[in-house]
Amino acid sequence: MSDPEDTPPPPRKGALKLTTAELVEAETPEVAPARSHGRRAVVTALSGKVRPRDLMAEVEAVAGVWTAKIVTLFPEAFPGVLGLSLTGKAQDAGLWRLETIDLRPFGLGKHRNVDDTPAGGGAGMVLRADVVAAALDHAAAGTPASRADWPVIYMSPRGKPFTQGHARRLAAAQGVTILCGRFEGVDERVLEAYGVEEVSIGDFVLTGGEIAAQVVIDATVRLREGVLGNAESATEESHSNGLLEHPQYTRPAEWHGRAIPEVLMSGNHKKIAEWRRAQSEALTRDRRPDLWEKFGK
Amino acid sequence: MSDPEDTPPPPRKGALKLTTAELVEAETPEVAPARSHGRRAVVTALSGKVRPRDLMAEVEAVAGVWTAKIVTLFPEAFPGVLGLSLTGKAQDAGLWRLETIDLRPFGLGKHRNVDDTPAGGGAGMVLRADVVAAALDHAAAGTPASRADWPVIYMSPRGKPFTQGHARRLAAAQGVTILCGRFEGVDERVLEAYGVEEVSIGDFVLTGGEIAAQVVIDATVRLREGVLGNAESATEESHSNGLLEHPQYTRPAEWHGRAIPEVLMSGNHKKIAEWRRAQSEALTRDRRPDLWEKFGK
Repeated sequence: MSDPEDTPPPPRKGALKLTTAELVEAETPEVAPARSHGRRAVVTALSGKVRPRDLMAEVEAVAGVWTAKIVTLFPEAFPGVLGLSLTGKAQDAGLWRLETIDLRPFGLGKHRNVDDTPAGGGAGMVLRADVVAAALDHAAAGTPASRADWPVIYMSPRGKPFTQGHARRLAAAQGVTILCGRFEGVDERVLEAYGVEEVSIGDFVLTGGEIAAQVVIDATVRLREGVLGNAESATEESHSNGLLEHPQYTRPAEWHGRAIPEVLMSGNHKKIAEWRRAQSEALTRDRRPDLWEKFGK
Repeated sequence: MSDPEDTPPPPRKGALKLTTAELVEAETPEVAPARSHGRRAVVTALSGKVRPRDLMAEVEAVAGVWTAKIVTLFPEAFPGVLGLSLTGKAQDAGLWRLETIDLRPFGLGKHRNVDDTPAGGGAGMVLRADVVAAALDHAAAGTPASRADWPVIYMSPRGKPFTQGHARRLAAAQGVTILCGRFEGVDERVLEAYGVEEVSIGDFVLTGGEIAAQVVIDATVRLREGVLGNAESATEESHSNGLLEHPQYTRPAEWHGRAIPEVLMSGNHKKIAEWRRAQSEALTRDRRPDLWEKFGK
């Protein structure tokens, strides 16, 4: 992937126009770590390039619009899949905002070093507490201090497992700041000092937290009002009632000798609901005894 | 996000040159659902556009190179984060391949419909068995028939939880085909008929399987030989030994009144290893009683 400075994002519909003074300001960021996505990207008349409205993002932050702030060494990883489909449309419609904060400019020295070797030895590199703290301070501008209103999370395989309940909690907040790790991890002291929640999307290891952050944002944004086309979809699906979803079928009625189960073709809504419920329960019992046990309680 | 036809990916270094006949062939795909990424993308001299080498992908498939084939309605979601950092470098180095198969051209009728309403009623839409089957047949070309050598998986919250062990199993195969769902799901019959494994990355619901597929590929590719810079990194981290990783610290030795634990500064390797082990165990017991219980067995 090329340098993000060389490949500006394409202009988006509905981009706002700026005055020349504003353009000049946007062209000469001094710290410039913040980058807004989607509706906040504008074509600058001066350079013909697309530039994020770095310094204006804060001023512009729309009150009440759920916002994800991502601290990352790979801001070009965003919006990624989040810019497509339902989440992309919702972003275009102003239902949520995405802002990336490049960790690199907060690094130290000529090379903007963000990491160092682990105290006590071992492989890999650890993100420095002071560098991460500076980026988190920057992200905190304009956000409520209460961690309930604006959680700060760090994607880590050591974290508490991310669940649908967690997504609902994030969706009920005003926004979230997500720190994406790389290397061996982050200096423990900054996690303690900043009340950072460690969150894991599962018992596996990724090269970095960026994909995990996208998972968290996708699962959360789709629970915000107006994002899903059909309000029913979010209540019928897997995990919304503690059970896995029943099997689904659609036309053709017969395919390669396999017919749709008769009950689904009966038009008897009560029987269909009973069949689906029984299938959900059997599937959960079979595939996820852990969920089934919780469900029984 | 704009139409992928309007925003071709940037040319990559090391792109191969084609003869005019090959370019014409690449310009006029008849079915054209397959799209290779990374090293297989070329700039066509005729149009000045970047085009995947659609029809040549199969001929070119490098024996022994681990390959992920993704069946999706959003091929433009790839490579996404996978094109960056370690996984991106490994792709450029030819250590793995990514191929997307657009589901849309397999759709039916003028509008290439891929889905229909659920049999028995309910919200949302279900991907048709015949359409998905055609795409899976296409993906199967050139792959071993054995599901152990080449698993075919469907990303779904109803699936078996994806774990580090699962990633190791995929990394030991020759490649994987991943079906990304959208809407309410996929007609159950095609999952049965094609021996498709349902895999879940966690107990939450995403707008589609694309991010989940990226999670699976990232976790898998980094286990392939030569992808991680330091072979040790993969063995010391969380979940590799059934425990969560111990806390990490790096310079400065003191930060905001918080010092690095003394033992880590002692130079006594045995004591450091003991301290880390104790921390790992305490963290696992505290945060993940489920893992701790398994670990004790």
